[in-house]
Amino acid sequence: MKHTITFEPDNTTIRVDKGANLLEAALAADVHINATCGGQGVCGKCRVVIEAGEVDSEKTEKIDQEEYEAGWRQACKTALLSDCTIKIPVESRGLKRLAVQELDMGKAERTVSVLDTKPLAVGWELDPMTIKLPVELTPPTLKDNVSDLSRFSAGLRQQHDIEDISIDMRCVKSMPEVLRNSDWSVTATLMADPAQESLLSPNEKNRPLRLVRIEGGDTSGQNLAVALDIGTTTVSAQLVDLKAGRVMAEHAEYNKQIQYGADVITRIVFAQKPEGAETLQSVVASSINQVMDELMEQSGSSKGSISCIVSAGNTTMTHLLLGMETRYIREAPYVPAANFMPLVWASDVGIDVPDCVQLCSFPAVASYVGGDIVSGILGSGVFQKEELTLYMDIGTNGEIVLGNRDWLACAACSMGPAFEGGGIKHGMRADLGAIEGFHVNPFTLEPMVITVGRKKPQGICGSGLISVLAELLSACVIDRNGKFVRDLSSDRVREGRFGYEYVLAWAEDSGTGHDIVINEVDIENLIRAKGALFAGCLTLLESLEFSFDDLDRVIIAGAFGRYINLEKGKQIGLFPDIPVEKFHFLGNGSLLGSRLVCLSNGMLHEVERIAKMMTNIELSDNQSFMDKYMGSLFLPHTDARFFPHVSEYLEVNSQMIQSERKTQ
Amino acid sequence: MKHTITFEPDNTTIRVDKGANLLEAALAADVHINATCGGQGVCGKCRVVIEAGEVDSEKTEKIDQEEYEAGWRQACKTALLSDCTIKIPVESRGLKRLAVQELDMGKAERTVSVLDTKPLAVGWELDPMTIKLPVELTPPTLKDNVSDLSRFSAGLRQQHDIEDISIDMRCVKSMPEVLRNSDWSVTATLMADPAQESLLSPNEKNRPLRLVRIEGGDTSGQNLAVALDIGTTTVSAQLVDLKAGRVMAEHAEYNKQIQYGADVITRIVFAQKPEGAETLQSVVASSINQVMDELMEQSGSSKGSISCIVSAGNTTMTHLLLGMETRYIREAPYVPAANFMPLVWASDVGIDVPDCVQLCSFPAVASYVGGDIVSGILGSGVFQKEELTLYMDIGTNGEIVLGNRDWLACAACSMGPAFEGGGIKHGMRADLGAIEGFHVNPFTLEPMVITVGRKKPQGICGSGLISVLAELLSACVIDRNGKFVRDLSSDRVREGRFGYEYVLAWAEDSGTGHDIVINEVDIENLIRAKGALFAGCLTLLESLEFSFDDLDRVIIAGAFGRYINLEKGKQIGLFPDIPVEKFHFLGNGSLLGSRLVCLSNGMLHEVERIAKMMTNIELSDNQSFMDKYMGSLFLPHTDARFFPHVSEYLEVNSQMIQSERKTQ
Repeated sequence: MKHTITFEPDNTTIRVDKGANLLEAALAADVHINATCGGQGVCGKCRVVIEAGEVDSEKTEKIDQEEYEAGWRQACKTALLSDCTIKIPVESRGLKRLAVQELDMGKAERTVSVLDTKPLAVGWELDPMTIKLPVELTPPTLKDNVSDLSRFSAGLRQQHDIEDISIDMRCVKSMPEVLRNSDWSVTATLMADPAQESLLSPNEKNRPLRLVRIEGGDTSGQNLAVALDIGTTTVSAQLVDLKAGRVMAEHAEYNKQIQYGADVITRIVFAQKPEGAETLQSVVASSINQVMDELMEQSGSSKGSISCIVSAGNTTMTHLLLGMETRYIREAPYVPAANFMPLVWASDVGIDVPDCVQLCSFPAVASYVGGDIVSGILGSGVFQKEELTLYMDIGTNGEIVLGNRDWLACAACSMGPAFEGGGIKHGMRADLGAIEGFHVNPFTLEPMVITVGRKKPQGICGSGLISVLAELLSACVIDRNGKFVRDLSSDRVREGRFGYEYVLAWAEDSGTGHDIVINEVDIENLIRAKGALFAGCLTLLESLEFSFDDLDRVIIAGAFGRYINLEKGKQIGLFPDIPVEKFHFLGNGSLLGSRLVCLSNGMLHEVERIAKMMTNIELSDNQSFMDKYMGSLFLPHTDARFFPHVSEYLEVNSQMIQSERKTQ
Repeated sequence: MKHTITFEPDNTTIRVDKGANLLEAALAADVHINATCGGQGVCGKCRVVIEAGEVDSEKTEKIDQEEYEAGWRQACKTALLSDCTIKIPVESRGLKRLAVQELDMGKAERTVSVLDTKPLAVGWELDPMTIKLPVELTPPTLKDNVSDLSRFSAGLRQQHDIEDISIDMRCVKSMPEVLRNSDWSVTATLMADPAQESLLSPNEKNRPLRLVRIEGGDTSGQNLAVALDIGTTTVSAQLVDLKAGRVMAEHAEYNKQIQYGADVITRIVFAQKPEGAETLQSVVASSINQVMDELMEQSGSSKGSISCIVSAGNTTMTHLLLGMETRYIREAPYVPAANFMPLVWASDVGIDVPDCVQLCSFPAVASYVGGDIVSGILGSGVFQKEELTLYMDIGTNGEIVLGNRDWLACAACSMGPAFEGGGIKHGMRADLGAIEGFHVNPFTLEPMVITVGRKKPQGICGSGLISVLAELLSACVIDRNGKFVRDLSSDRVREGRFGYEYVLAWAEDSGTGHDIVINEVDIENLIRAKGALFAGCLTLLESLEFSFDDLDRVIIAGAFGRYINLEKGKQIGLFPDIPVEKFHFLGNGSLLGSRLVCLSNGMLHEVERIAKMMTNIELSDNQSFMDKYMGSLFLPHTDARFFPHVSEYLEVNSQMIQSERKTQ
């Protein structure tokens, strides 16, 4: 049930779900309300008057009885229960919104225009990577004393019409006891020999099934898979019930490799040390085990029921997990040991599962376009559609894919960790207290700050950095070079040790006891990062003779992507200036593809096809890319023609602010 | 160059090679000369007169000067250098030979009629199990930075037209360093995925090649394989040059498992003990390593050049080597874990070779018809010929195969170790001092004894036992029940602790200082053993509605078989009474088949076909077999119709001896 909230005096409206937080609704509606404590209710700045409608908002010590009766409330402590009219007090009031449009908080809040139907691969059938089949055998007699394996194979043929199987030694070894201890009633786990094991085999359909496990009794009802996304920072996993085709549990943990370096480069350097590679393999396995323990806990399942693991990760993560040489990924000309990874026994790399469980790794395309991207392309269905799609995975490394069902081109551009908070003075991950939403009053320069978990501000996370940068730009606090405007009359802008800076939270409002700021060096890093991504997209498009206008869709992947405010991303030149309807947020595309492969052998074959289709365009020695990168080191860009709508908005906005500032 | 030797007064002739030993020539010609010290020259009994011809024979202390000048010599110390006429003195003279036929020592001595052209598989081409190909690669650049594996695969495709390969993780791991340390010039070792890995795959021709190794530089000239025969007693091996298609070295050692039991049953019992199976696996691997060290020494090769190992062995030996459960091989209903064995890494079972070397094991047919028999059928070409062939492998377990190119049936009959000297009072292996040749004078009962290495007798080996039994029978010293004739006037036949016995060597002539005898219990064991084999053959033939007369060929395999005197084997009912021309001695058929598989992938596919073609007829609960076995506990058989020629010979011989004994 939706309610319409009207903010006065500007008559801006937004539709919200019942119970939505008023401060968040204002932020989504681009209505400024001063707020400095992140939403915790302690600064008492976000005072508004409820003029009409029903809210749930207790009296706080920041509002006296008289005010409370007059309708004053703290926005951060107010839940909206009906259509409401909210009056913003004069001290908060900023610039009137330029364009009045239909706003919905669910869409506007984080993504402006995420579509309800996520982009997903279609047309696959439940045909899981491993199947479990009960087999009932007749005990041997002197008249019928074929080998255990022959008896088992005959049973499989007669009872399940499965003719050709290959078999691993482990199964042969365990078979005699399993058969006899279970009165000749067993369950066979079979898996299609994944295509990756062969580099280039054209006829994978004819491959025999492989017997990977034989268990006593009928356990065919417990057939689980683990879909993994091994990120540089985070290991995410889903537990998938292969029989029902559904996700039973989901969990993520930090990748413990972080202690040996924040990014892939430092990890590769560490891997060159004695025992370095072994250590990294062992700690990522330990992270995987930790995630899996939680999945077991959540679902009440046992690891003994796991029959396969599918993993997607960037090229370095995959190499490290499998114990492959990473050195040449880092050194020019950036060559991975392999893109297609053989199957391995999961227990051989330290994953705590029965030793019959195979680990299937997504193939990579290049040193910096890994299996996680291939997995995302699979999961998002880009490879199935006619529409020209740009797929972006934003992180320390920005990976971009352009194409459709007929062709795919990809590139990787080194963004650096700025948008993950790395190299930013008060940057941090999206943990409690991270500033994730921000607005600034262009005249008073007072901020409106919302943090993760509504705690006192501790720092700024990625989505916060996008908002901060975009807000400071559109409020004419910084110019298009990312430098602070010098003649502003506010103590929030000051000269610090690292050049000019803006104070997002004073020490008394912050959770750290120190001022939280963003400075010109931070901004420079952010501009470089977004510049690299944009230049990469442009290079990829131009090398195939396309422009941004030709794009039918833009898919933004990565856990990070879910919290980015799209309009603000466009304003700083991070995203292309095309209609918001064309944007889709995928979430963790890598995990999506991994899960799909667990569930469908047909999709596994598509994986191989996708990886082979993807043409990597190397940007590291590409002069055209370097030129485009230099042109992108501007907010939003040197060339306004790439950002026509954003440029026009900023121009009009700027004129209004400048003229109003003169009158004040 | 052959010489004709004539023995007087009976005018028996035999053709011998120049330099042949006179005592051996007499034995081969069935001419009796007393000899009790085994040929060492110390008993002085084998005195003969050289009537004509040239010999090399120094005077010994057993011949005085006068005798020496009259032409007396010790036969055991005499080499024949021209056509000769030899007079046998009266004290040695026995029965005149019944039939005068063209004799040649080379044939008569051990086999009577081995054909020069051994039965061998034909029509195979040199298409070895592993191939080594040099691959020259262009180093990567930023414009061409595909993964190492992709670069390598492209090189293989361009330079050798090899498109589909599968790859093992070990190769992926080593590839980056190998490529860079060798300036991008490497050698790939590839192997066809052997059919055994899949149980029942019909389309093995389309399987991709598997990359098992990548080495720096061009090592394609060194591509060696080891063909193994893992026997219960002996581990035999050949080193095969896969490029040239020739055997470089051959060697055999005892299987060190012997210390844990002489036969497969006691080994299986030992394997059930804690660490038992691991111990047996480890010691057989150690025996294999010892054999391989010798092969390397002989050929001046290095183990690093070995690229595959093919092994054949009986079902128990194969299970123990691969670490599979053997318990149910021993317990009724005698079920092996598997007949088709997956490929394993040779180093995983303890064989000391590079860890890229795969061990390919011959498939078995049943618990007691193993890969060694399948290998022998392959090597002997039985599966290719139209002729109806009976293949016999004689040992503790007698394995028999009947069939031709269209069908194959097999059976195993437990003979016990009697013909290997087991359960025989003075039985021994064919080591130095083992009686291997024997003749007896039917009137004086004095023996003619020849030992391995011409040493004083220590005991009796398998071929000796056949000769002793046949000679005692045809000289009417024992009857057709195997019991000693009671009224013989010789102290060589006497009543001992285990019933009547015959003294082959008195204590003073023996190497042990004790009398060497054969007693009625020994003879009973031998009769049971030969009875089981014959009954097995008869059951197999009759179950398929054939008789012995229908056989086109009989192939006798096993190292043991090379030393059996065929005629004497027929006389005791061990071999069927059919023309000697139909018999072939194969030697180690198992090793022959292993070598063939190393050299030819086509043959590997035949192996699978053969193993599947072979129908096992279980004898252990077969009433018809039991009946036939009871009928076979007689020398040569209860039913004379099965041994018409032998029976006639024994009858005529017996009449002559009985009548002559009466006149003496």
